[in-house]
Amino acid sequence: MLNKDDFDFIKTYLPFLNQLEKEEYRFIENAGSKAAYSQGKTILDHENECSGLVIVKSGQLRAFFEAEDGKEITLYRLLSGDVCILTASCVLKNIDFEVMLEAEKDSQVFLIPAAVWGKLADKNIKVKEFSMELVSERFSEVMWVMEQMVSKNMGQRVAAFLLDQSALEKSNSLELTHDTIAKNLGTAREVISRILKYLENDGLLKLSRGRIELLNTKRLNEMNR
Amino acid sequence: MLNKDDFDFIKTYLPFLNQLEKEEYRFIENAGSKAAYSQGKTILDHENECSGLVIVKSGQLRAFFEAEDGKEITLYRLLSGDVCILTASCVLKNIDFEVMLEAEKDSQVFLIPAAVWGKLADKNIKVKEFSMELVSERFSEVMWVMEQMVSKNMGQRVAAFLLDQSALEKSNSLELTHDTIAKNLGTAREVISRILKYLENDGLLKLSRGRIELLNTKRLNEMNR
Repeated sequence: MLNKDDFDFIKTYLPFLNQLEKEEYRFIENAGSKAAYSQGKTILDHENECSGLVIVKSGQLRAFFEAEDGKEITLYRLLSGDVCILTASCVLKNIDFEVMLEAEKDSQVFLIPAAVWGKLADKNIKVKEFSMELVSERFSEVMWVMEQMVSKNMGQRVAAFLLDQSALEKSNSLELTHDTIAKNLGTAREVISRILKYLENDGLLKLSRGRIELLNTKRLNEMNR
Repeated sequence: MLNKDDFDFIKTYLPFLNQLEKEEYRFIENAGSKAAYSQGKTILDHENECSGLVIVKSGQLRAFFEAEDGKEITLYRLLSGDVCILTASCVLKNIDFEVMLEAEKDSQVFLIPAAVWGKLADKNIKVKEFSMELVSERFSEVMWVMEQMVSKNMGQRVAAFLLDQSALEKSNSLELTHDTIAKNLGTAREVISRILKYLENDGLLKLSRGRIELLNTKRLNEMNR
């Protein structure tokens, strides 16, 4: 059950809600829920896949795909106001992969259960249109990730990842383990450690336990030209 | 303009056509076109991107994505009856990448122009639903390709690619250049040549000019376990 403030927040990001009939509206209000997750916590994994539509109230989530061999690849990030529909894949015809979510910062999220969303989308063309647009948006993001995978070597991808993190955190001193970077880029920790060591020797960054300090963002940027 | 036989063929694969109103129906009949492409010919590239919905009558097409640096990655193949909607990306909201098509065998295709499709989808919920299902299906295929990229090394991917080609061609003797394999897997020709040489030395295949003969499909299969 969502309260009025929560519902007002959601309406900003699901604009079609204003066009729903009163009973459909109540339906979402009653079925929706709110939850808080602390940094590092997995929100959706194989145990509770296809939970439903996730709307981020605050914080930062990482949406990732897990290959059969356990390797992870980050697909996109969700910030306040972002909506994730791939976590409702079971009600999306022909989407046969699962997307996992993890809190990268302390986060608050709203959840609309998959079954509720599915029923609404079947009845209401606005909801279906919204679903289609969300799926297409994520598809485009995934193609972007794929392009990075194809056209950049791992060193360039590490540099780009560190610069992205630095922009997100608004800091050149990043709390990051080699394992976290490996998971984000779908490779092994050893590969990342080797690249980081190389970049450190080159004077581009400084490594310490669980922390990476970017010393020369200009040259890190130039790696991707 | 499509004749009756052509239209009957298309209706089998675009089932919603039977539910359209007469004028919408005529609209597609008049705007649709048919074309033949010989093996190796590019059907859609950057010059004429976003042509529209492609329906394959006969032959085999390769749908691929071209990264900024020119590297290609094969996303999926289209055989008789298959429909490609990503070639109409300009009328799909939020799809901001382009998919190219190339004839891998002599092929005949039908084309419904993007603008015509866009107008229909705006008016008719069945067309919109069909679009959503097609987009989702391709999204799932792309995720599968990405999983291969993340969880397999290039040697395994080459082996899997050769076995796929062998199944498609129903032959162990494949007309394939190293460059073609490189383009399919989004890597450099040199990388592929090295791997093929290694597999040849190992007795798994035999290389000759423009041709690869698979000598031990059992062991090629085992590489992917």
